[in-house]
Amino acid sequence: MKTKAARGEFDIIRRFFAPLARSEPGALDLTDDAAIVSVRPGYSLVVSTDTIIEGAHFFSGDTAADIAAKGLAVAFSDIAAMGATATAYTLSLSLPRVWKCGQIERWLGAFAEELRVEQQAIGVILVGGDTVATPGPLSLTLTVFGMIRSGHELRRSGARIGDLVYVSGNIGDGALGLSVLTGHLDQLDDVQREALARRFRRPTPRLALGLHLSGIAHSAVDVSDGLVADLGHICDASRVQANIEAARIPLSEPARAALGANPALMAQILSGGDDYELVFTAPPEAAESLARIAANVDLALTKIGRIGVRETLDTGPSVRVTGLDGQAFDPGIGGFSHF
Amino acid sequence: MKTKAARGEFDIIRRFFAPLARSEPGALDLTDDAAIVSVRPGYSLVVSTDTIIEGAHFFSGDTAADIAAKGLAVAFSDIAAMGATATAYTLSLSLPRVWKCGQIERWLGAFAEELRVEQQAIGVILVGGDTVATPGPLSLTLTVFGMIRSGHELRRSGARIGDLVYVSGNIGDGALGLSVLTGHLDQLDDVQREALARRFRRPTPRLALGLHLSGIAHSAVDVSDGLVADLGHICDASRVQANIEAARIPLSEPARAALGANPALMAQILSGGDDYELVFTAPPEAAESLARIAANVDLALTKIGRIGVRETLDTGPSVRVTGLDGQAFDPGIGGFSHF
Repeated sequence: MKTKAARGEFDIIRRFFAPLARSEPGALDLTDDAAIVSVRPGYSLVVSTDTIIEGAHFFSGDTAADIAAKGLAVAFSDIAAMGATATAYTLSLSLPRVWKCGQIERWLGAFAEELRVEQQAIGVILVGGDTVATPGPLSLTLTVFGMIRSGHELRRSGARIGDLVYVSGNIGDGALGLSVLTGHLDQLDDVQREALARRFRRPTPRLALGLHLSGIAHSAVDVSDGLVADLGHICDASRVQANIEAARIPLSEPARAALGANPALMAQILSGGDDYELVFTAPPEAAESLARIAANVDLALTKIGRIGVRETLDTGPSVRVTGLDGQAFDPGIGGFSHF
Repeated sequence: MKTKAARGEFDIIRRFFAPLARSEPGALDLTDDAAIVSVRPGYSLVVSTDTIIEGAHFFSGDTAADIAAKGLAVAFSDIAAMGATATAYTLSLSLPRVWKCGQIERWLGAFAEELRVEQQAIGVILVGGDTVATPGPLSLTLTVFGMIRSGHELRRSGARIGDLVYVSGNIGDGALGLSVLTGHLDQLDDVQREALARRFRRPTPRLALGLHLSGIAHSAVDVSDGLVADLGHICDASRVQANIEAARIPLSEPARAALGANPALMAQILSGGDDYELVFTAPPEAAESLARIAANVDLALTKIGRIGVRETLDTGPSVRVTGLDGQAFDPGIGGFSHF
């Protein structure tokens, strides 16, 4: 079951990961049984965990740096959606047994360097982890932590009838970027294709926005499974219905170009995932605050619809979409699923 | 990269995992972006993460129940070694893509049922997770949480010269159990073999002992990589040397029988892992308290050696073993490694 190795895991921790934990005394240099995380009085800890696997959530050819960056972004996006301050993370890394020593060294060097850059940008620190050899593909589990004033978290269940529905940034780039990377959308030029691919590979967790939304938005979720599916989670938890207009969905220039060439892509824009923007609901009187926040965090916040009474509580879609032609639009099954 | 599925992950959460989270409001029924964990004022959170993979840390034929039980035990053993109160965990589960629907259902049913039983025994609750389909083998990452009065954690770095070295329970059963399961030790009878195999499959995290040791022991670690390797971690972190006697290592009846038949097994007993007992150091004046604790938690605590000045700081073994013959004994390379 196990292989005797020259203290391989300890060397890996010392060389590659302990430097990422050095400024946090509670991480105990990653050499103790567990890390100590202190939480300010009056605050709660917010915890989320995500696994990403080669061949399922990222491509075999993806660089160590891209995997590190995407892993952190995807995981901390959940902290953003709670309106919490990101603080720390643990990393469990499964490296393929078949990798050679030199390959492991090079990969870990690039991976740890990108973690260093990204954790500084996000403002978090590594506090613990595990490194194992796997007979399977490369895989990572990140458990991420944030802090929030107790009771101030943004939940999915808080949407109220009359709320307006907003999204941050642009929607659809993640799904279209994945299309580019799988050999589609060749009607676009190279700059457009690269812009979309980059948004799939390097999403940005909307942490600053999430912090500002706490106390203003009634509910929030990040767009990971797809706009309609994720907004559907808010509606299901809040027992309401969202009515949104396709014409209002904010699109990037390459997404507009792609949609211009093939209007059928609207379904993909609405139900594809991987944008890691926030979709949230807020009362109409929050409009001014939201305009200030948008300016503060330098990110567009676009009103795309409204929360109403749910017509059918237990069946039927909780998100109704009006298409570009003014007719009801069915974007297909609700959301991509990683399962 | 992703497959559209009929909201598979949400169904899995609702049916199998949400019931494990029901009594914890902060788990938000596992349906929000993240869980809320509150920490009592004056207390810190203790966090540890472990990944176990089919074919590396458990056998392909192991039952869902055994995997659930061992996963929780191994992970919470780290919380025990810190002297903390176990509180909660997140579970990230990677299920093989090739599994059929019926197989997934049966497996998850048995797995979740055992989690329910074990989490009740340990006194913890599921607060979050992720379920993904993998092109690789079954794998689980557990991130476990405990609480400890700030500053009262048992660290590896606290051993002092003159401390006595103790272990809980019996040592070596884990490694010998693994030998049984890989077809060795056929000189033992079926009852002995089954007893050892069971200790490998179903270790017990020494949480009650850890709680009692906080404030009494100077340092502690759990025996996962092997007694000599793990005690070595204490010595390295504390910059001391441990001198232990093989004759004092507490052995179970089947381990004594195995060693009687083959004295060379002493190396395996000392350097094999998977016991999940605690090895700790405490000053001589703690002897009476330790006797009371042993009675309280109904677990033998055995003195196996003493902490001394380190003879060679940067090289050479930090744990010296006196063999059964009174001569210096080298159990071989320090500890099994999962890497």
